[in-house]
Amino acid sequence: MDNRLASIDLGSNTFRLSIGRVVRHGASAQIYAEDKLRELVALANGLDDHMRIDSATVEQALAALRRFGERLRGFPPANVRAVATNTFRVARNAAEILPAAEQALGFPIEIISGQEEARLIYLGVIQDLPPSDHRRLVIDIGGGSTEFIIGRRGQPLELASLEMGCTTWTRQFFPQGRITPARMRQAILAARGALESISSRYRGTGWEEAYGSSGTAKGLLAVLTENGFSPRDITLDGMERLRDALERKGVVRLEDWAGLKAERVLVLPGGLAIMIAAFQELGIDRMQAGDGALRVGVLHDLLGRDLHQDQRDETVRQMRDRYQLDTAQAGRVRTLALQFFDQLGLEAGTETAELRRALGWTADLHEIGLAIARGDYHKHSAYILQHADMPGFSHDDQRLLAFLALGHQGRLAKVRSYAPDRARWLALCCLRLAVLLLRRREPLGALPLRLDVHAQHVCLHIQPGWLAARPLSGFQLKKEAAIWRKAGFVLEVVER
Amino acid sequence: MDNRLASIDLGSNTFRLSIGRVVRHGASAQIYAEDKLRELVALANGLDDHMRIDSATVEQALAALRRFGERLRGFPPANVRAVATNTFRVARNAAEILPAAEQALGFPIEIISGQEEARLIYLGVIQDLPPSDHRRLVIDIGGGSTEFIIGRRGQPLELASLEMGCTTWTRQFFPQGRITPARMRQAILAARGALESISSRYRGTGWEEAYGSSGTAKGLLAVLTENGFSPRDITLDGMERLRDALERKGVVRLEDWAGLKAERVLVLPGGLAIMIAAFQELGIDRMQAGDGALRVGVLHDLLGRDLHQDQRDETVRQMRDRYQLDTAQAGRVRTLALQFFDQLGLEAGTETAELRRALGWTADLHEIGLAIARGDYHKHSAYILQHADMPGFSHDDQRLLAFLALGHQGRLAKVRSYAPDRARWLALCCLRLAVLLLRRREPLGALPLRLDVHAQHVCLHIQPGWLAARPLSGFQLKKEAAIWRKAGFVLEVVER
Repeated sequence: MDNRLASIDLGSNTFRLSIGRVVRHGASAQIYAEDKLRELVALANGLDDHMRIDSATVEQALAALRRFGERLRGFPPANVRAVATNTFRVARNAAEILPAAEQALGFPIEIISGQEEARLIYLGVIQDLPPSDHRRLVIDIGGGSTEFIIGRRGQPLELASLEMGCTTWTRQFFPQGRITPARMRQAILAARGALESISSRYRGTGWEEAYGSSGTAKGLLAVLTENGFSPRDITLDGMERLRDALERKGVVRLEDWAGLKAERVLVLPGGLAIMIAAFQELGIDRMQAGDGALRVGVLHDLLGRDLHQDQRDETVRQMRDRYQLDTAQAGRVRTLALQFFDQLGLEAGTETAELRRALGWTADLHEIGLAIARGDYHKHSAYILQHADMPGFSHDDQRLLAFLALGHQGRLAKVRSYAPDRARWLALCCLRLAVLLLRRREPLGALPLRLDVHAQHVCLHIQPGWLAARPLSGFQLKKEAAIWRKAGFVLEVVER
Repeated sequence: MDNRLASIDLGSNTFRLSIGRVVRHGASAQIYAEDKLRELVALANGLDDHMRIDSATVEQALAALRRFGERLRGFPPANVRAVATNTFRVARNAAEILPAAEQALGFPIEIISGQEEARLIYLGVIQDLPPSDHRRLVIDIGGGSTEFIIGRRGQPLELASLEMGCTTWTRQFFPQGRITPARMRQAILAARGALESISSRYRGTGWEEAYGSSGTAKGLLAVLTENGFSPRDITLDGMERLRDALERKGVVRLEDWAGLKAERVLVLPGGLAIMIAAFQELGIDRMQAGDGALRVGVLHDLLGRDLHQDQRDETVRQMRDRYQLDTAQAGRVRTLALQFFDQLGLEAGTETAELRRALGWTADLHEIGLAIARGDYHKHSAYILQHADMPGFSHDDQRLLAFLALGHQGRLAKVRSYAPDRARWLALCCLRLAVLLLRRREPLGALPLRLDVHAQHVCLHIQPGWLAARPLSGFQLKKEAAIWRKAGFVLEVVER
């Protein structure tokens, strides 16, 4: 692996590029910051009434990504991870924008879930904190969402993402930037309302130190301390004094406040309301500003994948246990499906390697839908894989797993809308053949079959006599061939 | 309760009405058969290529139901349960037919899942068997589906419903009733293919006695014994001899076989193929014919509900444990929601009582979706409640629970398609208010609120001062009122 990693955070307010240099010490490694770029895109502000990002904002975003792309030219794809957060999660036209954005950047972009964002933020924040056994609360107020994490050392204990951010809150509660006591009260109550869903759980888990990791926290800290509202740290008392002052002035002006950065003028009231609500609802005494956040978390997650500590393996292991899957059968299906996959002759590279991993994970979890019902369990498997909180997995990862799970039984028409490319069709074919041949849930013994693939033509070579002794498998392979014909593939079974 | 119960089984081949008289002995009770009606409707045969039941068959079905309805006139609704099985499950126009069918019968008709059908069949079959500690395998080959159950005493251990039946199999594999060795081989292999998904599990669980409970089993037994293929019981050897004879003749003629009933002529080859496949795949030695089946199971299930041993309570309890729900919070929500419900002033009767039970069950399980993900958990709760195997619950029961779960959070537009009547909207309102007021997950103490409902106007009376001390609840009640306005209800909060 090249010794440089890059993360891109397409936030609702700011896009950030971070480049880190990996220095290895035996089995472990550290990342040293090498370069950073940031661009204020104000994506959440570009959302129109129909929850579509307007074209001017899209143009601005693409221009920023092109600049990032230039900086990243020559980076191996496996060393780059670009993640998009809340505005991409909620924008109705996200799917339309994504291909252009990926082309501008030159790398794939993953829309990650709020839970995944929270996990990565925690991973990022703890890198810059001294080691401690304390429980730590981390609050990251972004442009469109706010993440709340309690963790201890490397382990997140609570993860939540609420759909409120400094940009969206300011837009909703302080139109034209006018601040009144009634508006501020509404904004705080609405944020407390959202927080109520997690507050008793978070208070129950508890913490010893609280950190704010976003621009909002850093900006608040600067304004509070440099204008004498708080001697140090963010406190409720200090914020209440700032709130009074803002309500008196009625509007945020850059020149009124020492420490205020120009880019935070527009989002200060919303961010303040959310932070006050968090202090009130969770009972926070004081909060320090933490560095790191999402972009650093993404870098460290990439490093973990390189060191074969892929969070996704752990997630799959935990789901397998939690849903009490038949691990013996899952293991047999995984082994056979991957044996077939390795015979497909797909071009080696990051994409094929990722597809192979997805195939393995789906094999591990393909029966997870049995937890809901036996009938049509493949549909329930797909539903769970698409919607579950799966740390380390992006939306696209989960969509791929759900596609493979949904398609592993029955006809193929239902997965057409996923529009799989050839490699993904073939991966699905491997999974289906493995499940078909292993339906007896017994070991197959030495593999008497071999795959041979040219274009859309899959040839399954079987040792003579094997099929004659298994009329049922023969019957089902014939049905399988008919199913694949409709998807434009020839599945041929040859005895020799 | 009136001492007569009635069950109606709208099977894929036959409709059956059973009336039983309940004789009580202290806390227990027995059912004595009082009357039976049956009508050959051949519903599965009426399915056209688009999986719609054709209008001639629908007319025949409605006529049969009208005759049943005449016999049932005067029965209290709580004493009647009508269940529809596989053809209704798969027919695309089932939802269109159902209202007319219910009107013809004069009672609601539930489309039940295959699992529920299997549970009820087992409950019916064991009524007529001597008490025993043996594990019993029951196979019920219907017109459109076949149920496989292993149970011990009153407890089913394995339940499965496979979508193959004597009517559909005959249609698919023996067009024009022509029987050839190749066709028979295909029909058996296809049935074995379907069975493979359960065979290793069923063989693992094991059994000491096997029973066939349907017309197919009884018909086969008669033909096998009366024509000398088997001295007694259904055996693989006897069936193979019948198969040979049928293949030689090429067609089933009533006059060729002693013991064959006219109505079974058309479905014999498909039923035979499925039974042979079951014997081969599961390794059955011999099988007795069992009486009872679905219609008897439904009667006993009704009796259980009357004796306050509603299977549905047990199902909800099991799900609550299996999904590790927060039972304290569920209990608080249930209590408060039911307190509100009892203040709605709905007309007393079976429907209101059932709705109240549904509200209680949904309150128990409303957070079940958390098992999949925290975000949008109400959608996942609805998905699980709609799709899970829930013994005792009909499809309609589950749809109602899913509606309440889906609607208990967020806006109401998403549940419009369920087209709830006023009572169901109000039940949903009770659940929402309970969840809203209990979001802190702490006991509320004495209830300082009271509901008062006229038409579409819900008035929530709150003790003076209570709201002033809870600005957050006040804020959320205001949002709630806005949400209900869009659904055509006025939700007014009055302090006095």
